[in-house]
Amino acid sequence: MRLAYLRHALRPSPFTAVVVNDLAVDVSHTLATPVDSFALDQPARQDLMERANEAACHREDGVVPLAETVFLPPVPRPGKIVAVGLNYRDHAAEQGKTPPAAPVVFAKYASALTGHESPIVLPPNSREVDYEAELAVVIGRPARQIAREAAYDYVGGYTLLNDVSARDMQRQDKQFTRAKSCDTFAPMGPWLVTADEIPAPHALDIRLTLNGQVMQSSSTREMIFDIPYLIWFLSQSMTLEPGDVISTGTPGGVGVFRQPPVFLKPGDEVAVTIEALGTLKNHVVAAAVA
Amino acid sequence: MRLAYLRHALRPSPFTAVVVNDLAVDVSHTLATPVDSFALDQPARQDLMERANEAACHREDGVVPLAETVFLPPVPRPGKIVAVGLNYRDHAAEQGKTPPAAPVVFAKYASALTGHESPIVLPPNSREVDYEAELAVVIGRPARQIAREAAYDYVGGYTLLNDVSARDMQRQDKQFTRAKSCDTFAPMGPWLVTADEIPAPHALDIRLTLNGQVMQSSSTREMIFDIPYLIWFLSQSMTLEPGDVISTGTPGGVGVFRQPPVFLKPGDEVAVTIEALGTLKNHVVAAAVA
Repeated sequence: MRLAYLRHALRPSPFTAVVVNDLAVDVSHTLATPVDSFALDQPARQDLMERANEAACHREDGVVPLAETVFLPPVPRPGKIVAVGLNYRDHAAEQGKTPPAAPVVFAKYASALTGHESPIVLPPNSREVDYEAELAVVIGRPARQIAREAAYDYVGGYTLLNDVSARDMQRQDKQFTRAKSCDTFAPMGPWLVTADEIPAPHALDIRLTLNGQVMQSSSTREMIFDIPYLIWFLSQSMTLEPGDVISTGTPGGVGVFRQPPVFLKPGDEVAVTIEALGTLKNHVVAAAVA
Repeated sequence: MRLAYLRHALRPSPFTAVVVNDLAVDVSHTLATPVDSFALDQPARQDLMERANEAACHREDGVVPLAETVFLPPVPRPGKIVAVGLNYRDHAAEQGKTPPAAPVVFAKYASALTGHESPIVLPPNSREVDYEAELAVVIGRPARQIAREAAYDYVGGYTLLNDVSARDMQRQDKQFTRAKSCDTFAPMGPWLVTADEIPAPHALDIRLTLNGQVMQSSSTREMIFDIPYLIWFLSQSMTLEPGDVISTGTPGGVGVFRQPPVFLKPGDEVAVTIEALGTLKNHVVAAAVA
């Protein structure tokens, strides 16, 4: 099931929708946000899906074309976004670094989230804003000291995340938090795909295009630390909660390590595509002058 | 006004209380959490305070001794906790480091929060857990690109935070996030003190004792980057939201730089005291065997 969190001009507040082809079927009576789907058991999820398909077929009330809506992040207020650095072999190689012995964990703040088709705003205090295509894992239920073998039981779904990064800040600060958490630096979406639809999350093509040109192209099988490892590793120290996001790192091809380097500029269009999940597209704008 | 977020055995859910001496006056009819006080104007805050004092005098319904309650973090779900490293001159000196040119920003996840008098749990994967007394600033209204001169208008209140840190993880990871975000590594409280009561937040004694022995003793005037600077600096990149916490760094005297080093062990009692704010006390326990 694909669950989006949407705005529509005729509605006062955002609503959760099941995505059926190019239609959004309002299911806000059942789900306040897409994350609430994790509390449903498989029959209830199946039932919701069937009713949504039915509603879409008959264009019932509460069915609107996706084209009329604005996409919000499908996980609107994650308790935490755990990002993992240097987690693809080709990305470690392009930096001339040996793969790390343990995951490199850093935070992106939720205030940086933005939705599909919303702008990435270049902040006035950086000249080196870069893109990073990532598979984001959304935790489905509380996870503490979880064995690797059981880890997938704690995954609620998947989405796409662009780990936008101000390289100059990142270099200056050494700690990555600020450079990775500028407003709009966490485009996420377009929707959440429930875990039952992704039986093999490590066999997915992942790609990023900048103005139509392929900049990153890899597979989630190239991850150094896989999803069960990350859930095991993190849950040894911190409880993972429903709606928490683990962004699993980016493949090679980021802008800063290209010769010459490539950074985002106003007018650019960045699109992250992950097989079976969809495409997260954002355009780049300059900050409004304060 | 001192606002606590409490549990009581006879109540099904946590509630917000005004603290009057050793009494808690339930104000949950007006404030779901202490953070909601930031939406009150000065007359409404004054009125709430007077009614609470009155209720305490007459031991009305809804008044319970603090001793009967359990303290929860006064900001139960901050959108972000922004911590600042190396922000006291004496703490930079004890590491032999020159003061940084810009604030060193890192994240603590909200899942690490715990309340006054709750245990700090030593995780099985660290042998070097340390304490850090910090003044925590709680943001009162949305702050984006704020001038230093206006910064205090965006402060809602203050509390105490112990930035508990696993030094071995911190050394291994280099990124501080995991080492600073283990469960229970962010004791906060006992209460929130509204900003109107703290006219001079940079003239406060700050002290930490371990089993009654003074380990840190300094003043908030020793900060390298003061509160207006931090709000200006952070708000250039990221929007600060009501309830966001800025933990302003720790003075010298942490355990890891002592000769010999001192780390927390089961049975220890750690108390952070900041003048005009109160004392945040926690005891240390070993992790239960899984």
